[in-house]
Amino acid sequence: MSKTYTKTEKAFLTYLREIKAYHEALSLIFWDLRTKAPKKGVKTRSETIGILSSKVHRMTTSDRMKEFIDQLKDETKDPIIHKAVLECEKKYERSIKIPEDENKEYVTLQSQAESVWEEAREKSDFEMFKPYLEKLVDFNIKFANYWGYDQHIYDTLLDIYEPGITVKQLDEVFPKLRTSLVNLLEKVKRSKNKPDPSVILQKFPKEDQKRFTLEILEQMGYDFEAGRLDDTVHPFEITLNQQDVRITTRYDENDFRMAVFGTIHEGGHALYEQNISDELEGTPLSSGTSMGIHESQSLFWENYVARSKAFWKRYYNTFKRYAPEEFHSIPLDMFYQSINEVRPSYIRIEADEMTYPLHIMIRYELEKALISQDIDVKDLPELWNDKMEDYLGIRPRNDREGVLQDVHWSGGSFGYFPSYALGYMYGAQLLHAMNQSFDVNQAIENGELKKIKEWLTVQIHQYGKMKEPLDILKDVTGETLNPDYLVRYLEKKYQDIYQW
Amino acid sequence: MSKTYTKTEKAFLTYLREIKAYHEALSLIFWDLRTKAPKKGVKTRSETIGILSSKVHRMTTSDRMKEFIDQLKDETKDPIIHKAVLECEKKYERSIKIPEDENKEYVTLQSQAESVWEEAREKSDFEMFKPYLEKLVDFNIKFANYWGYDQHIYDTLLDIYEPGITVKQLDEVFPKLRTSLVNLLEKVKRSKNKPDPSVILQKFPKEDQKRFTLEILEQMGYDFEAGRLDDTVHPFEITLNQQDVRITTRYDENDFRMAVFGTIHEGGHALYEQNISDELEGTPLSSGTSMGIHESQSLFWENYVARSKAFWKRYYNTFKRYAPEEFHSIPLDMFYQSINEVRPSYIRIEADEMTYPLHIMIRYELEKALISQDIDVKDLPELWNDKMEDYLGIRPRNDREGVLQDVHWSGGSFGYFPSYALGYMYGAQLLHAMNQSFDVNQAIENGELKKIKEWLTVQIHQYGKMKEPLDILKDVTGETLNPDYLVRYLEKKYQDIYQW
Repeated sequence: MSKTYTKTEKAFLTYLREIKAYHEALSLIFWDLRTKAPKKGVKTRSETIGILSSKVHRMTTSDRMKEFIDQLKDETKDPIIHKAVLECEKKYERSIKIPEDENKEYVTLQSQAESVWEEAREKSDFEMFKPYLEKLVDFNIKFANYWGYDQHIYDTLLDIYEPGITVKQLDEVFPKLRTSLVNLLEKVKRSKNKPDPSVILQKFPKEDQKRFTLEILEQMGYDFEAGRLDDTVHPFEITLNQQDVRITTRYDENDFRMAVFGTIHEGGHALYEQNISDELEGTPLSSGTSMGIHESQSLFWENYVARSKAFWKRYYNTFKRYAPEEFHSIPLDMFYQSINEVRPSYIRIEADEMTYPLHIMIRYELEKALISQDIDVKDLPELWNDKMEDYLGIRPRNDREGVLQDVHWSGGSFGYFPSYALGYMYGAQLLHAMNQSFDVNQAIENGELKKIKEWLTVQIHQYGKMKEPLDILKDVTGETLNPDYLVRYLEKKYQDIYQW
Repeated sequence: MSKTYTKTEKAFLTYLREIKAYHEALSLIFWDLRTKAPKKGVKTRSETIGILSSKVHRMTTSDRMKEFIDQLKDETKDPIIHKAVLECEKKYERSIKIPEDENKEYVTLQSQAESVWEEAREKSDFEMFKPYLEKLVDFNIKFANYWGYDQHIYDTLLDIYEPGITVKQLDEVFPKLRTSLVNLLEKVKRSKNKPDPSVILQKFPKEDQKRFTLEILEQMGYDFEAGRLDDTVHPFEITLNQQDVRITTRYDENDFRMAVFGTIHEGGHALYEQNISDELEGTPLSSGTSMGIHESQSLFWENYVARSKAFWKRYYNTFKRYAPEEFHSIPLDMFYQSINEVRPSYIRIEADEMTYPLHIMIRYELEKALISQDIDVKDLPELWNDKMEDYLGIRPRNDREGVLQDVHWSGGSFGYFPSYALGYMYGAQLLHAMNQSFDVNQAIENGELKKIKEWLTVQIHQYGKMKEPLDILKDVTGETLNPDYLVRYLEKKYQDIYQW
């Protein structure tokens, strides 16, 4: 910070840095809870989380914050401070519009709902979760009205996770994408050239899987001096600070795909966070710009890189160095086809890359209808199953593998799901743009994964939250959201595999 | 908390709980830094530590805190709150007596001095460290005068770590202890029956050492659901909350004693913290009452239990289950004698239990003289070496193995060292008292280590900071500090080993 700041700017930066300190502590606490923490300490730890979170909340909604916003918004000449002010203003405005007692009630509801959901899912009992979900939907409708919106009430929820994206856009894009995917899926189903996934479902010791993924992370340019890899039940990436970006993964010794693709996925998130410009450190801008853009990075590495033929041309021998004998006799083509098997599944997180976006659209359509009060919570299980049958051709046998499978709604997250499908589309658009700069497949085959990382850093990572998601997309690809690239990518790839 | 509290009491407890939350975050950060954290994240992490620490400092010295103290000190009828108020008052009074600018200067000096010390020790160059140490001593003299004292200026520093202990007491006890130890050491030196330590210096794989220590920790009653064991460079125990008390250890594959006795030592600290009464949770009372009493617990397990013959009678077979072949032919007596070899060493942390307290007395005498301005910093190396020769019969060949070996002074800790020797003496007094309740050696030989833990919990652990160190000693043993028990213990044990 060799820049010259005004007194207010300096005070604002110090204030932001203090908020960041609590965030860093909270992130470490979450990481620890999910990787290392002894179980009896969790009760007190939860209280501590509550105390630190409410400290952050008080600071982001304080009169002091309001003063900073008012004083700096029009006056500051520093573009980073200006953008940070806008970011703070957004959070401030959202927070102060919610009456304190309602917010308190909502926070309590969230934590109750999450544990009820867990039990309800276990028992596959939607009725148990229903009253909580009803209240959560009601709160979200009420909050959305407090926040206000131009066109569609759901827009204001979308805006939390993917600023700039609206119902109007999604309603244009998603149906096109859905039709294309359903058509592709039909072709897959009719194909006589189906891969046999069982050939790759061989026992693969955890420690050897880990060694392989560590080597790939290294190749991708993940900086192990600014991060680490641990085991967990639910894989995640978490940023403590810009030079401490950790990832976790889980292992299935009978299906290496979980850890290998899971780790590369989280590695993609981590590369984003590790490569944000140092200039943004200590401000709310030093993080990925949106859920969708973040997901475009993780999916880029997981699918467009690591599930490509070029990748396995390059790394299949490396893989075999760590894999047990049983893998050694599988021909490359057969291996490649097997890891790319398309098979409609009940569970979203087990879906392949072709059917995955269909899972998202089901959730989008349902939650949009819930928020605009076109459907009732009580009708969800039936509607869910109908859509599954419609889009994927399979009907869940119970709510556990249907409407109860995801945690998001129990935490009150409405508007989040679309990010996943956006990530797929953004990613395909970025792949297209990257191919204008250099032959991506050739680079992968040459083992130049760092070239991909560099390109993504220059185009996306460095900006953190300085640019809005659709501005990034525009600047990099010259276009707005466009599903055609994803469809074309899938068509080309799966035509080759399924030979229709 | 089913008690009825007044409004002020409730507010005070909430305030204390918030301070605890920052402490918990800080503890986790320290633990993480020393066990897991990627190195590039350390810079930002250090800033974060500074921010959280100064938040704690602001809260413990705030006007609000002063109000709580004034309102509750004489009014509260709750003994826990009353004691917590006194504890807060003590911290408050100490803090506000230091002018803010001097404190700031001192904090900066501390961190500079620590890194200068590291380099100076590396280079064995006292001159390099001298100006920093001079300033640190000056500050401590100045602060001690701000704080005030009755008899000796050093008393007010002692009081930080071991409330109730004074120079008067130490000057009675230490010389007696020193004379006895020097006499015992003479007998050891003249003995013709010296153990051969080389027989136990066999390669012992780290993972197997760990398995053995885990089994012993389990036997001691360390609760692994409320803690965990990790690797580190400098072993420590750290309390995140009462149900999350972690320990770390380091391994030397050519000398198992480092990890085995080190882990049991930290385990002793951890048992103390794990077994404090739940009623004190969330207050500053939920921690060990003093450095000396804490050390009495760790040393109790390390020496009085784990270096005893009874312990190895019981656990030598267990040990052999994990130890390599080379150990299997060593007879129990020879093994026992070897792990208890007495040999004067330059380095305190490598000292045996007989010579260890002599290292402490050297430091005590020197720092007391520094603070009372009877000697100058520049004369330290020479005085140090003279005393080493006098008490231990060896003269350091350089400052690295002499006056520069310990980190404490570089952090401004004067008054801390005596705790170590107090821990030895307290421990021997507790052992004597425990033997009035049951035959300790017999219990160890029966593998009833938990009986020892239970006794220590009832007598000491549960009280946390509710009792002052000398009150605990009095209540448990009926006596005040008395070095005779330690001397008798050492005499008996080493007469048996060295057969004089």
